[in-house]
Amino acid sequence: MAGPDLAADHPLDRAIALVAARADDPRCLSGATSEDYWNAVGPFGGVTAATLLNAVLLQPDRLGVPLSLTVSYAGAIRAGGFEIRVRLLRGGRTTQHWSVDLVQGPADEVMASALVACVLRRDTWGVREARPPAVAPAPESFGPRSGEFPRWLRWYREHLVHGELYRESPHSETLAWIADAPDRALDYPALAAICDAFFPRIYLRRPRPVPIATVSLNVYFHAGLAAMAAQGVQPVLAQASGQVFSEGFCDQEGRIWGAGESLLATTHQVVWYKE
Amino acid sequence: MAGPDLAADHPLDRAIALVAARADDPRCLSGATSEDYWNAVGPFGGVTAATLLNAVLLQPDRLGVPLSLTVSYAGAIRAGGFEIRVRLLRGGRTTQHWSVDLVQGPADEVMASALVACVLRRDTWGVREARPPAVAPAPESFGPRSGEFPRWLRWYREHLVHGELYRESPHSETLAWIADAPDRALDYPALAAICDAFFPRIYLRRPRPVPIATVSLNVYFHAGLAAMAAQGVQPVLAQASGQVFSEGFCDQEGRIWGAGESLLATTHQVVWYKE
Repeated sequence: MAGPDLAADHPLDRAIALVAARADDPRCLSGATSEDYWNAVGPFGGVTAATLLNAVLLQPDRLGVPLSLTVSYAGAIRAGGFEIRVRLLRGGRTTQHWSVDLVQGPADEVMASALVACVLRRDTWGVREARPPAVAPAPESFGPRSGEFPRWLRWYREHLVHGELYRESPHSETLAWIADAPDRALDYPALAAICDAFFPRIYLRRPRPVPIATVSLNVYFHAGLAAMAAQGVQPVLAQASGQVFSEGFCDQEGRIWGAGESLLATTHQVVWYKE
Repeated sequence: MAGPDLAADHPLDRAIALVAARADDPRCLSGATSEDYWNAVGPFGGVTAATLLNAVLLQPDRLGVPLSLTVSYAGAIRAGGFEIRVRLLRGGRTTQHWSVDLVQGPADEVMASALVACVLRRDTWGVREARPPAVAPAPESFGPRSGEFPRWLRWYREHLVHGELYRESPHSETLAWIADAPDRALDYPALAAICDAFFPRIYLRRPRPVPIATVSLNVYFHAGLAAMAAQGVQPVLAQASGQVFSEGFCDQEGRIWGAGESLLATTHQVVWYKE
């Protein structure tokens, strides 16, 4: 799953790097939080998702490519080291189901947990039913969002098509061109992280930031290796909206569009908010 | 979480019933597959989801109501008994994260696994952004789908608004009024099951049935206890469509609408198919 050489020293690769915690046991890995991708009170959730996914991708008996990833954000991960425990729930000829826990501290507190399915993709009948938004191509060049934002945002170039924050907008849709900064060829961990790179939907509806926390994130990968390779370092078109904000919780549905109008991933999350 | 008396002897309640597998250990439960909800080669996936959710709802230290449920369908559950192992990943004041495995056989093979978040809902600012489909009210009375269908379908009354099968339709949207049969007041397990009660999206696009299997199912519950109580035995309006069918896998996004245009749940799944 390694990208080309230009990715070898990318901050994202350093952030999701894992090593064997014990010799001869690929199911137990060690990592550490990244200052580069620090958010308000913990790591950027997209990098946590990418790290959990990476733990599965590193398994020597892993099959094919990821199809689905669900992350439970159980606790606020503390700065520093963590361990990841990987469990193969069940393997078949074409599908594997994995469970992954991220634990910290002497009591092995579970700070995040994920379910991952990996599959062998193959040629079949197919059709894309969802339609990409009508939008002008990405500008030739654009940089990270400017302003006072959490640290991890400097590692994304973003050209916002619509979806300004804190305008009490009548809808919560965001449409933006996004790419890793510096350039990095897209792969599954990077795509998983981008799925969580949207601002909370409630920031589009309300006049000011409010406390939020993602409870659960879901990613379906629709891109096989060929679509991923075709994407390379080109920006993706990221689209997200919320359906309902009620009793302290809201959702988000997103689509990540790639080159040639391919739908690289669909993503969903549910978020706690205080307002 | 028990419904009113009319539900006490409903086939769904019998299908998802669990008992303690060992005295004094609520984290280990026993159940059995239901002939009532048998599908082609295993239990109806919606009942498996409802059973895994029920295992969490039965925990004496469970907090509030479910917010999210993700099920990995790891293997084909065999007819007969199973055990369910429940793990509290982490509990907070307002949110709990649970992990649930369904195992069978002397080797404790994991046949299904779920992540569940339970939360305390509370009064906040809120808005519903998604719009319900414009559709005539449900007919006064309607019964189960007629024809040659798997056994579990007899336990759902369904009035199809659109979404006929095997017509090579240019889109995969289904819109249908659905209710448990016989009447049963809606609760979280029943709502979870309904989220998986749609026919596979590929049946709407192709001229005939093809082999399919759900890999992963996701449900976000937007209904608190008040919305659930207001729903009662009224049918829900169930809406689903697929975004992409590619290389042997397709997705499904669904919305379950309740009384007063409330959005009771959103649901997503990713499905293996052969075509």
